Amino acid sequence: MCQLLGMNANTPTDAMFSFAGLAARADEHKDGFGIAFFEDRGVRLFVDPAGARASPVAEMVKRYPIRSENVIAHIRKATQGRVALENTHPFMRELWGRYWVFAHNGDLKGFRPRLHAAFRPVGDTDSELAFCWLMQELAKSHAGVPGVAELTRTLSELLPRAAAHGTFNVLLSNGQALWAHASTALSWVQRRHPFGAATLADEDLRVDFAALTTPNDRVAVVATEALTRDEAWHALRPGELAVFVGGERVTP
Amino acid sequence: MCQLLGMNANTPTDAMFSFAGLAARADEHKDGFGIAFFEDRGVRLFVDPAGARASPVAEMVKRYPIRSENVIAHIRKATQGRVALENTHPFMRELWGRYWVFAHNGDLKGFRPRLHAAFRPVGDTDSELAFCWLMQELAKSHAGVPGVAELTRTLSELLPRAAAHGTFNVLLSNGQALWAHASTALSWVQRRHPFGAATLADEDLRVDFAALTTPNDRVAVVATEALTRDEAWHALRPGELAVFVGGERVTP
Repeated sequence: MCQLLGMNANTPTDAMFSFAGLAARADEHKDGFGIAFFEDRGVRLFVDPAGARASPVAEMVKRYPIRSENVIAHIRKATQGRVALENTHPFMRELWGRYWVFAHNGDLKGFRPRLHAAFRPVGDTDSELAFCWLMQELAKSHAGVPGVAELTRTLSELLPRAAAHGTFNVLLSNGQALWAHASTALSWVQRRHPFGAATLADEDLRVDFAALTTPNDRVAVVATEALTRDEAWHALRPGELAVFVGGERVTP
Repeated sequence: MCQLLGMNANTPTDAMFSFAGLAARADEHKDGFGIAFFEDRGVRLFVDPAGARASPVAEMVKRYPIRSENVIAHIRKATQGRVALENTHPFMRELWGRYWVFAHNGDLKGFRPRLHAAFRPVGDTDSELAFCWLMQELAKSHAGVPGVAELTRTLSELLPRAAAHGTFNVLLSNGQALWAHASTALSWVQRRHPFGAATLADEDLRVDFAALTTPNDRVAVVATEALTRDEAWHALRPGELAVFVGGERVTP
């Protein structure tokens, strides 16, 4: 199974600790990795069809503290589509003058939506096809970029239509919010004042967030499985759509 | 002035030597750098609003031999638009299921095309605006991705309309070809059998390509100014559009 990681924060925050946790699970996920960092409206997108363990790009990401309000990362175990750069998540498109970043864990069977507008897959994964369809339908639903609440309402109608075809754990961001749709496996945790320490579930790496944060910082982390042993992770229910803004889970 | 670098090759080739030459000119170009590598249809896009001299991303690009058939790089000296990630060239969009990558050196005045379709700038540069307009007009001109000759005819009608508004040295690629449009400064060189050695114009770095190539390799390099001292660079004329496929300049 692929591994997803998302981060949403109220202040630019580095994702090195969580990415190290994700990369520790890369042993069986050698079909590529990718990570996207929003900095305001801009995006840095690193993708590498080499596994995260072997990739110099992953090495750089682990060492270079890129600070971001919205991060989406993915480690791939190919189910549909060849192992190739164009099939490596996350995928990115522009809509309404904003970049949109999408990563998917799961497998869709027989999802063949009609693409009649401006978004076409470059590669041959079910994931990129679903993303293009999602962008097309969002574009039809609103004339310009709507608020987060309105976007969430539209997404809560669209996502189940793809999810009906299989497993559709999804992370999506446009730099304003992080949307997490669970089908089988997505959990999240919030880190806020008073910050404690956390230990990665898969590696003996421990971070004391109190030393790295201010009392105003708020960070939400979403992952396929809990990344740490000693924090209160919440599992999303099948079909649940969670929205994070400024490091808080919001109810639109 | 910004610096552009393009590479088109008939076999995946690393751009480390040429990128080192470009980065050597980064002293006065501290407003960001970016480089895009096509691998077949996929793209690795590295952008950093930090200058190429200071950026760990540039450092990784210089050391990690990413092999590509089409490369576009840009070192920025801001003229329009703030120094920000979303204003850092090259820009990328998807059209007809292919990624398109664009970088611009120059300055357009009073170019305000009407954007009525699916491509909108995320940042606030004249360059990204011109790129979005170009994508929109290409999308209107062809129903699906046409051949290189047909694309070149369309581009040779479109590019002068933007170039009429100022300086428009441009590199564009969709992974099939590299288009270079000169307004004031673009030169190119072809490297092919028998390969010799070349010395960077700005650094005491010398490479013997004969040791790194096979007799069938062909590589075309395009840059704002000749990057090496001892090769035969050809300057493009103002208004000239050159197209490179498989490491050869082609006449469509």
